[in-house]
Amino acid sequence: MTSLAMIEAAADRLAGRARRTPLLSSPFIDEIAGRRIFVKPECLQHTGSFKFRGGWSAVSALDPEVRRRGVIAFSSGNHAQGVAYAAKLHGIPCVIIMPSDAPKLKIDNTRAFGAEVVLYDRAREDRDAIGARLAAERGLTLIKPFDEPQVIAGQGTIGLEIAEQAAGEGISAAEVLVPCGGGGLTSGIALALEAKAPGFTVRPCEPEGFDDVARSLAAGTIQRNARLSGSICDAIITPQPGEITFPILKRLCGPGIVVSEEQALDAVTLAFNRLKIVVEPGGAVALAAALFHPDALAGEAVIVVASGGNVDGAMFRAALERQAA
Amino acid sequence: MTSLAMIEAAADRLAGRARRTPLLSSPFIDEIAGRRIFVKPECLQHTGSFKFRGGWSAVSALDPEVRRRGVIAFSSGNHAQGVAYAAKLHGIPCVIIMPSDAPKLKIDNTRAFGAEVVLYDRAREDRDAIGARLAAERGLTLIKPFDEPQVIAGQGTIGLEIAEQAAGEGISAAEVLVPCGGGGLTSGIALALEAKAPGFTVRPCEPEGFDDVARSLAAGTIQRNARLSGSICDAIITPQPGEITFPILKRLCGPGIVVSEEQALDAVTLAFNRLKIVVEPGGAVALAAALFHPDALAGEAVIVVASGGNVDGAMFRAALERQAA
Repeated sequence: MTSLAMIEAAADRLAGRARRTPLLSSPFIDEIAGRRIFVKPECLQHTGSFKFRGGWSAVSALDPEVRRRGVIAFSSGNHAQGVAYAAKLHGIPCVIIMPSDAPKLKIDNTRAFGAEVVLYDRAREDRDAIGARLAAERGLTLIKPFDEPQVIAGQGTIGLEIAEQAAGEGISAAEVLVPCGGGGLTSGIALALEAKAPGFTVRPCEPEGFDDVARSLAAGTIQRNARLSGSICDAIITPQPGEITFPILKRLCGPGIVVSEEQALDAVTLAFNRLKIVVEPGGAVALAAALFHPDALAGEAVIVVASGGNVDGAMFRAALERQAA
Repeated sequence: MTSLAMIEAAADRLAGRARRTPLLSSPFIDEIAGRRIFVKPECLQHTGSFKFRGGWSAVSALDPEVRRRGVIAFSSGNHAQGVAYAAKLHGIPCVIIMPSDAPKLKIDNTRAFGAEVVLYDRAREDRDAIGARLAAERGLTLIKPFDEPQVIAGQGTIGLEIAEQAAGEGISAAEVLVPCGGGGLTSGIALALEAKAPGFTVRPCEPEGFDDVARSLAAGTIQRNARLSGSICDAIITPQPGEITFPILKRLCGPGIVVSEEQALDAVTLAFNRLKIVVEPGGAVALAAALFHPDALAGEAVIVVASGGNVDGAMFRAALERQAA
């Protein structure tokens, strides 16, 4: 179970390794939202998303003897890159298991971060069996994407920074909106803020059709998504909240906020125009909630996490074209 | 004449007002450039460019009695927004004189930052006469875009931050590449680094056809551009280096580096893909120099200023489409 002490220890290990991202703002965005909005741009983090924090936290927390043998992860997205780069900087082997039909750019990027990419056929091969075999043969440690206490601790370092930076802006009460997939980022931030900024309330944000966390919080028990793919918000699509993360979300978070894909794209465009940052649709759902769901929010200040920026040019052009149309 | 003491005093006045922008990097960019590249993203500054620093520095340096009457500037671009927002935050009147054919978005943005926009007809009216009349009638102080010691001091605060941040990365010798128009940003940074990082050499960067600074440095005397408009790098197009800035550039800078418009656009795309920041073409010429002119550079580390991000969606889409083609 992730404690504040674990988050603070992760922050020590991340010092000088992860980027301390700034808090951005724009009077134009404040005007649309009708309140002060501060954006924590984790798209500017190494590898283009917050996942580097959790990856580094988990890899650096391993016993050196265990770590030297290497790590393994399943992911075609931001977690793959975060773990791969953390492993590369530690100088240890890293295997990332990806479906053979993953976009070539993602495969290339993961390899460029130093990982050995093992491709499998989604239709005919068992990903978990391949991973278990490789882990056993080579002594690799599995780094899970969110249901892993040291990963949650790493993501929680964002909460520590938010508490400090918000205090610097004179904010003592705010809602903190976080794009939520499996809940590692959201639960880590909620744990940090519980201790460091008790006047803050964390709100998980999701796209329509993939609102498992919002429904789980409303029901009080874990709910699954009907669909498991087919969203432009691919970075935050998971079947259901984690077994470790959900109890934390349930204890600490306010109700989830659900946005449309169109609202996520409009938030991408506003982040381009007004904050000069590149955010992927999944990473923009919290900004979309702040901009387009003002009635779901209370108070004068909202802090938004922009969780990642790994969007390809075609998708980004499509977002900008909506504005021009 | 801007001194280190003036730059440090400007940094004190800017503390908590201007954003301290981070230093970004990417192993992908390092690989293309063949050396370590660090990017200072002033596109993330308030108003989307470094100009807010100079604007705030100049406005905050005025005698309170003088300041209360207000300020005036000529600009259709980043300087307009920087001065307007600095004046708004000081709660003083601000007049920006813009050509009536300026893009509507720029006029709207300048108004949204609280300025009174006075439009003039380029063909039939004398901009300077309008400005002089308004300044005299209302007691407004003119804030010049670069040939003004307190503006240079404000831009120089970027040099102070670069010196500190580079030391944190263990860099004691580097070339510092700066997009250069009239030379306020470049001379301010050069003055700060002369004192704080004497192992660093500043290199002004410009687009082809508008390389007045590179030619002036080569000739030892001020040279003019043949054309005064018609570049996608509009943010850094000026007729010639400033009377105040050029002697500083001549004393402290290495030779200028000139890039093509295509290289500037490719740098915009790489900044999108690898750094997740929005940079306008003129703000990307220094990154283009680092990426595509490695033979013009020496040493293992280069620091690049990405000076602004005020690019419209159509231009940005065009940059991304080059990559897709």
